[in-house]
Amino acid sequence: MGVDKLEHIGIAVKNMEESNKLFAKLLGRDHYKIEEVSSEGVRTSFFDMGNIKIELLEATSPDSPIAKFIEKKGEGIHHLAFEVANLGESIQDYGKKGFTLLNNQPKPGADHKQIAFMHPKGTNGVLVELCQEVKS
Amino acid sequence: MGVDKLEHIGIAVKNMEESNKLFAKLLGRDHYKIEEVSSEGVRTSFFDMGNIKIELLEATSPDSPIAKFIEKKGEGIHHLAFEVANLGESIQDYGKKGFTLLNNQPKPGADHKQIAFMHPKGTNGVLVELCQEVKS
Repeated sequence: MGVDKLEHIGIAVKNMEESNKLFAKLLGRDHYKIEEVSSEGVRTSFFDMGNIKIELLEATSPDSPIAKFIEKKGEGIHHLAFEVANLGESIQDYGKKGFTLLNNQPKPGADHKQIAFMHPKGTNGVLVELCQEVKS
Repeated sequence: MGVDKLEHIGIAVKNMEESNKLFAKLLGRDHYKIEEVSSEGVRTSFFDMGNIKIELLEATSPDSPIAKFIEKKGEGIHHLAFEVANLGESIQDYGKKGFTLLNNQPKPGADHKQIAFMHPKGTNGVLVELCQEVKS
């Protein structure tokens, strides 16, 4: 097993409005949607890079994981999200391989995804998200 | 102008041999090459994700930018590299747009690339590399 491909890169930002403008200037294209994931305490915006997406993440509450991340490390790359075919199976499989899953069950993410995170201590300091598209 | 696409993600690691094994387990595939860029003081290994590449970076000397990065921030995502059609023009163009280029001229990178970096202070804490394939 393994992952199918990199689906998106999550970047923690303090002010989404300003960062949407900055990334539009950097990437040469505008974001195509904004979506709030209230269960995670984040507002997200997405840039389509063709081969992958870039997701900006802004905290919607002081106890959001994104607020805590920025407090500790400052703005910057927050996670890499890899697509898997069967998230439930991947959670089991990576657990058996010795990775520390932060979620034992798939949970709802932005952009029609079910997601689960791995602890960065087991992945060279990289916060890894596994994600699976929810077919509607 | 802007960028064409995300070309690779650079991840700073302490021990490439161990990290090659870890990422092989995580990604479900082996690295396909190892290359040293002596001018940058780094040894790199590459994983082909189909849509993008993942580059592990190990310092080859204590004053390598990667050694300093790990000393300050620990192992983790070091940079995002975006492909551009004409690196010389992009350096000029991003400079005019207010981004701070760390290199005024293209310099040699790994994997048949000319590269230039932007200062992360101007890009929401993300170290951005612009890269252009060198046609051989």
